[in-house]
Amino acid sequence: MATDSAQLGSQLAEATLNESVSALKAEFSDRVPIRSIISRTDGGSGFAGQHVRIGGWVKTGRKADKDAFAFLELNDGSCPGNLQVIVEADKGDLGQLVPTGTCVVVDGVLKLPPAGAKQKVELRVEKVVHLGPVDPAKYPLPKTKLTLEFLRDVVHLRSRTNTISAVARIRNALAYATHTFFQKHGFLYVHTPIITTSDCEGAGEMFQVTTLISEGERLERELIKNPAPSEADLEAAKLIIKEKGDAVSQLKSAKASKEEIGAAVAELKRAKENALKLEERSKLQPGIPKKDGKIDYTQDFFARQAFLTVSGQLQVESYACALSSVYTFGPTFRAENSHTSRHLAEFWMVEPELAFAELKDDMNCAEAYVKFLCQWLLDNCSDDMEFISRQFDKTCIDRLKMVASTPFERITYTEAVELLIDAVKNGKKFENHVEWGIDLASEHERFLTEVKFQKPVIVYNYPKGIKAFYMRLNDDNKTVAAMDVLVPKVGELIGGSQREERYDVIHSRIAEMGLPIEPYEWYLDLRRFGTVKHAGFGLGFERMLLFATGLDNIRDVIPFPRYPGRADL
Amino acid sequence: MATDSAQLGSQLAEATLNESVSALKAEFSDRVPIRSIISRTDGGSGFAGQHVRIGGWVKTGRKADKDAFAFLELNDGSCPGNLQVIVEADKGDLGQLVPTGTCVVVDGVLKLPPAGAKQKVELRVEKVVHLGPVDPAKYPLPKTKLTLEFLRDVVHLRSRTNTISAVARIRNALAYATHTFFQKHGFLYVHTPIITTSDCEGAGEMFQVTTLISEGERLERELIKNPAPSEADLEAAKLIIKEKGDAVSQLKSAKASKEEIGAAVAELKRAKENALKLEERSKLQPGIPKKDGKIDYTQDFFARQAFLTVSGQLQVESYACALSSVYTFGPTFRAENSHTSRHLAEFWMVEPELAFAELKDDMNCAEAYVKFLCQWLLDNCSDDMEFISRQFDKTCIDRLKMVASTPFERITYTEAVELLIDAVKNGKKFENHVEWGIDLASEHERFLTEVKFQKPVIVYNYPKGIKAFYMRLNDDNKTVAAMDVLVPKVGELIGGSQREERYDVIHSRIAEMGLPIEPYEWYLDLRRFGTVKHAGFGLGFERMLLFATGLDNIRDVIPFPRYPGRADL
Repeated sequence: MATDSAQLGSQLAEATLNESVSALKAEFSDRVPIRSIISRTDGGSGFAGQHVRIGGWVKTGRKADKDAFAFLELNDGSCPGNLQVIVEADKGDLGQLVPTGTCVVVDGVLKLPPAGAKQKVELRVEKVVHLGPVDPAKYPLPKTKLTLEFLRDVVHLRSRTNTISAVARIRNALAYATHTFFQKHGFLYVHTPIITTSDCEGAGEMFQVTTLISEGERLERELIKNPAPSEADLEAAKLIIKEKGDAVSQLKSAKASKEEIGAAVAELKRAKENALKLEERSKLQPGIPKKDGKIDYTQDFFARQAFLTVSGQLQVESYACALSSVYTFGPTFRAENSHTSRHLAEFWMVEPELAFAELKDDMNCAEAYVKFLCQWLLDNCSDDMEFISRQFDKTCIDRLKMVASTPFERITYTEAVELLIDAVKNGKKFENHVEWGIDLASEHERFLTEVKFQKPVIVYNYPKGIKAFYMRLNDDNKTVAAMDVLVPKVGELIGGSQREERYDVIHSRIAEMGLPIEPYEWYLDLRRFGTVKHAGFGLGFERMLLFATGLDNIRDVIPFPRYPGRADL
Repeated sequence: MATDSAQLGSQLAEATLNESVSALKAEFSDRVPIRSIISRTDGGSGFAGQHVRIGGWVKTGRKADKDAFAFLELNDGSCPGNLQVIVEADKGDLGQLVPTGTCVVVDGVLKLPPAGAKQKVELRVEKVVHLGPVDPAKYPLPKTKLTLEFLRDVVHLRSRTNTISAVARIRNALAYATHTFFQKHGFLYVHTPIITTSDCEGAGEMFQVTTLISEGERLERELIKNPAPSEADLEAAKLIIKEKGDAVSQLKSAKASKEEIGAAVAELKRAKENALKLEERSKLQPGIPKKDGKIDYTQDFFARQAFLTVSGQLQVESYACALSSVYTFGPTFRAENSHTSRHLAEFWMVEPELAFAELKDDMNCAEAYVKFLCQWLLDNCSDDMEFISRQFDKTCIDRLKMVASTPFERITYTEAVELLIDAVKNGKKFENHVEWGIDLASEHERFLTEVKFQKPVIVYNYPKGIKAFYMRLNDDNKTVAAMDVLVPKVGELIGGSQREERYDVIHSRIAEMGLPIEPYEWYLDLRRFGTVKHAGFGLGFERMLLFATGLDNIRDVIPFPRYPGRADL
């Protein structure tokens, strides 16, 4: 399977060596991606002598030989490597070509470089087709090494840096690997809703989605332009009704003609309608609509309070209880005011759900999935992984290899706690006290996976008191069939469980935890009608990226990070 | 490519005929998916005599031969077909087994059915392993044919119906086909943000994302429990300061000891701090925080107003201007109050963006992508397409074949308008008047694709007045390099354009359209620094589903539809 995927992924780069380079051009552009040339076993040397169009951005450029020509290191984002490009002075304005960040499209001939050069092929330019210049004095990304922290302030340009573009390619590879893994195993991808009126965890800090504020402001503007009627206006309107009513009575007592009476009645009707409209308008209040002192959500877009989802699990369960094996992969949200390097307000989650499955099947699936992701990166992203390894984390490639090839350790929560207590006895210091019943802290998780076992560990059967209501109660009545996958570097990567499929048990668990039943009636229906054993888990996609790359801050592994006080673009 | 993907997709079903059926079991469950048995060229008959575990939900069940046994049509969502299962009375409670919706897991032997039977194989049960019963009196999905409209009120169960599960499989196939197409062509998948502080179209009705309301309510509850200090409290606190101040003065004039004075000064300091705290608390207002009469968004989660995205285009452009070929595929939102069968408040969009590309490249990409999707469904979803064709739209398979194999017509907007005017001259009636400069209405688009050309049509070079500021101005100064792909059944399926890459031109276009410059400064940076010709488009994913299935209402092709007044689950 890994071999299949490798073939699929590197198809563009794997032309036979006597093939024409122009056959490798992007189908929807005249240019040839740089990756198609240099990411070959011969480094592109087999193409020497051939003509090609290349586009990209200058990484570094310098003039040489008394400005007779310039060397440009060109990158187009298709791979971490650059193509060395040589431009003679009569082919273009060298001064405009050399600044870092300049965009160029050039036609040229691929040549073998002088003996001893690092590159295996280089391009001698025949024509500069396009030039998108950069004023180095104003460019926010100077050639000097920039910190990842600095780059967070220029999210719209940071994908032009080596690190962020490598992360983007690794992220892309993990996303496609995710789909490929689940599709190969017969899972159906289900788009669970982003806007939700259910709350998965019962609590959780959620973002509200509303049009009430903008509607309130619109009304406020409208009322300024066209004020609501005053008391006097309303009185005047009532007076007109009285006059019109009197007129009708007078015409009737005077036995006037039907036409005359009819006309007066029509006038009275119009006066009443007008007064009603004025009265309604007089009730308009600028700002958010209220009823009985509370916000009137019946006037909100969805006629009730709505939020951004914190998990697609509950909804995807409804699909699992019909289509058997499903998964969701989408954005989720937490309005938590945490300023750590591990939390985002918007992040992506992969959540498979398997019907006809128990906890053991869930663990098997999670282990196979994580291994598949690791092997995929080794097969498809070796150039990017090598870059990351050189720049940030020398151990990242070995970590992928180890996880891809080592069976995960599986221990119960109770065993885990015993191991931790033993460690404390042997002198290990933890900040958080260890005893049966605690939620394992990150330091405990990392001790188990990094020190004790030195490989991925699945901890299962957690105390029911620290886990969600939907997790299946074990026969001991103390623990639930939950499991967490712990990996070196990040600790918890996956959390999952077998779901409680027994109607009576889940009903009393909801009550026991003090949650209201009504919002979960639909969820209970899945147990009421044709209930099935099922299980699933969630993988935090950015956690997987931190694990794979060894980067420290989650804000650097998502293209546009959202956290308290920041949502650029 | 299509052949590759077909192999990938149907791998599970294509075992050699002498293979053991248990080799086809789902990797993470003991059951064998029904699809693996019946979706083979031999209909599963090659497996006769083999033992297998099956799980699924009863579509129809009936007792036979004086209740000696029961026939169950079992479906597990892996394909539209059912497996016929025969249970003898001594194997289980037939009365509990036959109701529609019942979940069963059974072990049994595959057998050839009696001659003349529709099915090619059936299962004789040896053991009922699991039974999730249904009370038919309470089950919301009786066996009778249910309308799609009725099913919208039971979104949590409707995936158990033939139609909604077929749509789910088709949707899954189109999603994976989308990723496969772009990955094969070297595009990188980029997760653009859902919460945004940019507005793509300058206007657009957007949902607001906020924590201000819940924070305001939290504060309100807190102030009820612990009311803000009164005027009297503040006065009292001031009085204490005065007293403590006097005490200090007295001690000083009395030349008291350093210790005594120090203690009094400390008391004074505490009194001042306390008064300050009370004063701050007295300013707390329940409800949404305001400043100068306006909502104070500096106190919102992101310290500014935030919205749900209406398109990932602008943000994904920043990645195209670094990584060349990218795409986004995610949820987008419109807070439009439309109650039509074509609009959702939450829907999914596919938005590729190509650097080093012009409008022609964009059209080539769009055409290749749509053809690929159609061919993928023909190769991978023929059973579901046949079901849809029988039940809803007899023309849907022919439509896919036609689009997959016919070159798209390409005409300019000006030519399109001329054709429409000609049609009017020849007696065609449109509700909307046709003249150069109008935005084409759906009736015009459908006339062009369904009547005039009877195939997909790409209309390009639209008047600049009806298109967005970022579309590239053509040399005629009247039109922009925009294009729409029109297809039979739905009209506009794709809208795209070459983007304006010239700094001066886009700057004046923003000003010309009365938009503020400041929010677009980051977007202008993409043109200021290393600008590149680029182009992209957006495909409404649900539109593609309506096109493929021929269903009429967009609420039926997304798992959890959101529209005014409704956001179930």
